[in-house]
Amino acid sequence: MTERKHNFNAGPAALPFSVLKTVHEQLLDFEENGLSLMEMSHRSAEFDEVIEGAKAALTTLYEIPDTHEVMFMQGGASLQFAMIPLNLGAGGAYINTGTWSTRAVAEAKTIGVAHEIWSGKDGGFRRIPTAADLAVPADATYLHYTSNNTIYGTQFQTRPTSNLPLVCDMSSDFISRPVDVSAYDLIYAGAQKNAGPSGVTIVIIKKSISRVFSGDPKTPKIMRYVTQAEKGSMYNTPNTFGIWIIKLVAEWVLSKGGLGAIHTENQEKAEMLYDVIDAHPRCTGHAEVTGRSLMNVTFRMDSEAREKAFLAHCTEQNMIGLKGHRSVGGLRASIYNAVPKESVANLCQALSEFRS
Amino acid sequence: MTERKHNFNAGPAALPFSVLKTVHEQLLDFEENGLSLMEMSHRSAEFDEVIEGAKAALTTLYEIPDTHEVMFMQGGASLQFAMIPLNLGAGGAYINTGTWSTRAVAEAKTIGVAHEIWSGKDGGFRRIPTAADLAVPADATYLHYTSNNTIYGTQFQTRPTSNLPLVCDMSSDFISRPVDVSAYDLIYAGAQKNAGPSGVTIVIIKKSISRVFSGDPKTPKIMRYVTQAEKGSMYNTPNTFGIWIIKLVAEWVLSKGGLGAIHTENQEKAEMLYDVIDAHPRCTGHAEVTGRSLMNVTFRMDSEAREKAFLAHCTEQNMIGLKGHRSVGGLRASIYNAVPKESVANLCQALSEFRS
Repeated sequence: MTERKHNFNAGPAALPFSVLKTVHEQLLDFEENGLSLMEMSHRSAEFDEVIEGAKAALTTLYEIPDTHEVMFMQGGASLQFAMIPLNLGAGGAYINTGTWSTRAVAEAKTIGVAHEIWSGKDGGFRRIPTAADLAVPADATYLHYTSNNTIYGTQFQTRPTSNLPLVCDMSSDFISRPVDVSAYDLIYAGAQKNAGPSGVTIVIIKKSISRVFSGDPKTPKIMRYVTQAEKGSMYNTPNTFGIWIIKLVAEWVLSKGGLGAIHTENQEKAEMLYDVIDAHPRCTGHAEVTGRSLMNVTFRMDSEAREKAFLAHCTEQNMIGLKGHRSVGGLRASIYNAVPKESVANLCQALSEFRS
Repeated sequence: MTERKHNFNAGPAALPFSVLKTVHEQLLDFEENGLSLMEMSHRSAEFDEVIEGAKAALTTLYEIPDTHEVMFMQGGASLQFAMIPLNLGAGGAYINTGTWSTRAVAEAKTIGVAHEIWSGKDGGFRRIPTAADLAVPADATYLHYTSNNTIYGTQFQTRPTSNLPLVCDMSSDFISRPVDVSAYDLIYAGAQKNAGPSGVTIVIIKKSISRVFSGDPKTPKIMRYVTQAEKGSMYNTPNTFGIWIIKLVAEWVLSKGGLGAIHTENQEKAEMLYDVIDAHPRCTGHAEVTGRSLMNVTFRMDSEAREKAFLAHCTEQNMIGLKGHRSVGGLRASIYNAVPKESVANLCQALSEFRS
């Protein structure tokens, strides 16, 4: 087998190797059923254990209260961008901290009224707004924000406060730190950063929203949360294989001590790397220090030629996925839950030594 | 490893074992990249080869003309039920041959006007309508049908004709027989019967529809074909792992000689089984003979107790997935492309011998 890479991909991204090994072991013969899970009915007792196990592991991790439920959907965060205004009503207030928030508010505006109450665009999306920056209209239907901005490398350190129902796209920092779920009406996340492979969206939703639909009666049934909620996410065939991996990943986080423990590890990894960047004569972090992401570390070198040379050096050293997104340029190290500390240490050393 | 089951599941269903073995071999180390494909960017050169390879294999299989293109989406056929009227316009004509057609027309009616021009409901969905049964309104926006009815075990032998744009849900007989794609404006299929794992929808669409959106401007962007078509199905992160398996499955069909060859094999398998059912003193096929499905063989025994005893006997003999859907009862053998002839022969023998 080829030596395993140090994987800094932004998503789809590194998965815990122990999880991949379990998937590998069971791929042809899931729990001694003589079949792959991919060949088994989503209505089977075996898959029922998988999906209920995945919900249970996430419920334990986040201490999800009885007022909320976990759903698995398809279509990525992008489908949620449409479902949110269709289900919660037009007139949402959006905090725009980057590419994905921009898309979320644009989709909401396609459907009806939506308010962009703050935008970091003019500042190159380098910062997260403070409470003083935000004038949340009292009559908005909900407040939407993106907790972590994969492309720009910024992250909310605390949730924005208002009296509105709170909706959060947690795609790129899902299950990476403790969150008080009871403060949210809706949390959603594409799985492909911290939680599993691409093709599953995890939704944690207040039952008062998921169990009643009061929007436009012309809204397609498949776009209403109630349709899937009433059927335990099995209104139609879900991505069974992806949900299995989410279960394994969530159980892996539990085995490491849960969200508190993984958060501590994520803080340590990020600190190591930001320290090297800040001390480096040729590097500058992209995000303002107070809004730095623990998941995606974005930085520049003092010339594009040097960035290119460093990327080539990293590739030689078995480290991949470090090229910055085209909207920011430079470099980006995505250091999600499953990226081992050793990989971050490797990158830190390579960067420290790269002075020429 | 547990002995591999004879898998008659209706979907998710049997996958070719050679495909599963390739997936198993490459699971931890995709093409010597030192990563699982699930950990690789959907923007990588490696995944680009996967998705383009999947499109190419399907294009070769169906001889898809330049006027059409292949897209990969999420959300199952159920999301297509909504997208079709949103993109092609309200006022579609629906032929209702079972559970999935019923859902398709119901979703279309949620969104706007839709015409159910024929229904097999009163006849227990036992038959496929003939040309004489169908009065297609000339001013309908499109004609929609479901080529194979997984639950009732019926299948269109030829496509219905009209002057309208033709739309077909081929979820349960996709890549199982030759189809003249040029006759269709839109073909769609959930992958989880013949083509791959659950969590990917394959769409073959006329570019005149996929490249222009002329529906209601309030339609969410993510619900417009043009959004994904312009981005080669990569507007947002697709189900990368599922698309890889679809590529492998489509290449496996090609290696067996293509759709003509697999169709012949499917005919042989179905004939073997229907012959045993028809000759059996205690069995009756559910579907009318002229509309029998090559994919899902539905039948009853003369008592529920006997059906139960036969199912128990099959389980002992390593044959699974044979219980009929609750809407029909009795037994159902799903014998998709990847179900080996040997499995069907096994079932035929067990059924022949089960006379008590």
